Amino acid sequence: MFEFDADTTVQRTGEDVFTAEIADRWNTLIGPNGGYLLALAARALAERLPMPHPLTITGHFLRPATAGPAEIRTELIKSGKRHATGAATLSQGGKDVLTTVATFADLNATKGRTLVLNEPPELPPADSLPDPITQLPPEWLPSIAHRVDVRVAQLPGFVRGEPSGKPTADLWVRFADGREQDPLSLVFLVDGALFPVIVEIGEFMSSTVELTVHVRAMPAPGWLACRISTRHVEGGYAEEDFEVWDSTGVLVAQSRQLMLIGG
Amino acid sequence: MFEFDADTTVQRTGEDVFTAEIADRWNTLIGPNGGYLLALAARALAERLPMPHPLTITGHFLRPATAGPAEIRTELIKSGKRHATGAATLSQGGKDVLTTVATFADLNATKGRTLVLNEPPELPPADSLPDPITQLPPEWLPSIAHRVDVRVAQLPGFVRGEPSGKPTADLWVRFADGREQDPLSLVFLVDGALFPVIVEIGEFMSSTVELTVHVRAMPAPGWLACRISTRHVEGGYAEEDFEVWDSTGVLVAQSRQLMLIGG
Repeated sequence: MFEFDADTTVQRTGEDVFTAEIADRWNTLIGPNGGYLLALAARALAERLPMPHPLTITGHFLRPATAGPAEIRTELIKSGKRHATGAATLSQGGKDVLTTVATFADLNATKGRTLVLNEPPELPPADSLPDPITQLPPEWLPSIAHRVDVRVAQLPGFVRGEPSGKPTADLWVRFADGREQDPLSLVFLVDGALFPVIVEIGEFMSSTVELTVHVRAMPAPGWLACRISTRHVEGGYAEEDFEVWDSTGVLVAQSRQLMLIGG
Repeated sequence: MFEFDADTTVQRTGEDVFTAEIADRWNTLIGPNGGYLLALAARALAERLPMPHPLTITGHFLRPATAGPAEIRTELIKSGKRHATGAATLSQGGKDVLTTVATFADLNATKGRTLVLNEPPELPPADSLPDPITQLPPEWLPSIAHRVDVRVAQLPGFVRGEPSGKPTADLWVRFADGREQDPLSLVFLVDGALFPVIVEIGEFMSSTVELTVHVRAMPAPGWLACRISTRHVEGGYAEEDFEVWDSTGVLVAQSRQLMLIGG
């Protein structure tokens, strides 16, 4: 079983209630990654709702999580022909960590117009690029860095102690263990692929207040090309926008998160 | 009392329960505007939560609303030093119409870094531009068109029967009755200022699946400059991005909605 599937396993203990084990393999430097927690909640919703794929999911992050047992309470809010909407709250030790609302759909059944007025990031072929992990001191690498393979055309400035001043990044990502992406894993990848790009403006501490992910199409196998940017830092808050394009050039996910900078 | 305040009045009938009257003054051609409904839910949350302003709010639209009585059930999920998170569901006749989750804050108390790598839309001064309402056939104008004043440099192509093919718009907006904006009204304006810009690619029927609004700063009085764009239409779904800049050049709100095109 692939790491992501093992570590997002949920056990249904009631119509609306699931238990899960937050693994320690998806840690950033300050604890379990937010995208991983959101994917755990989405996995429970996928079992609770009569539609298979997250179309749009929003998570509000309430408290830091820790590796170990968690409970996920879910609610079916509405089930329709095309969409099913529900909510899920992940808690640990009786305290809510993450609350979510989501609309699920069957992304294999979407039909209708397609018109894309944007392009995937321009990146050299992934396999022509070095693995940046090999160029970083091992003590900089939290466990999540070993779950996701990343390729960048050049190492980010902050890694060399020279933040570029540009809070943007283009990169290739995929699971390190060869698992191919699906709608559920895109919910994780928009937050789990890289440190926030505000490190390039010298902001090394931040926490996600809210993350909304739109899964826009079933992703093809292979490397995913991502474009990340922050354009507005105001009063200590910043948004981060994230696009994911699959190997056939289709935009498969788009997300925005609101982050609080600092403690 | 200004129209928006009158029509977002909520009556608290229990710790968590409010009643409201959905007015018929905020109708698009197909019924009450989604941003108006989201503002109604936000108004109830502002009374339920110990923080005054919506910082980030997400609504999932479940069924069409109709003018008339509604109930709003709220839930306080977490109250912290800086943020309060809650959920609200608006229903009519026992059926859920809109479900929301939101984090509130005190936008007068935000502090921390500001760095904006974007510019407000370039628009001629609002008062130099004609009111497009006077150039449209009255039967094209739903009631909401009389609530919001709009100024555009030139009439959208679709109005002349010639959609431009470019699903973008820059425009000035403010309340028609002179009410100045506040965080709550920005939640409405990101959806209520204009028809969806996909009319410029010939798509006249759409419904909002989900709308997330980030209120980024307390807005100054005066005209608001808005930038709207859709970049990805895929399998019958489109996102619409919306920026609102106040008269002092500050980005005060940013939103994205996911829309289903067609019936």
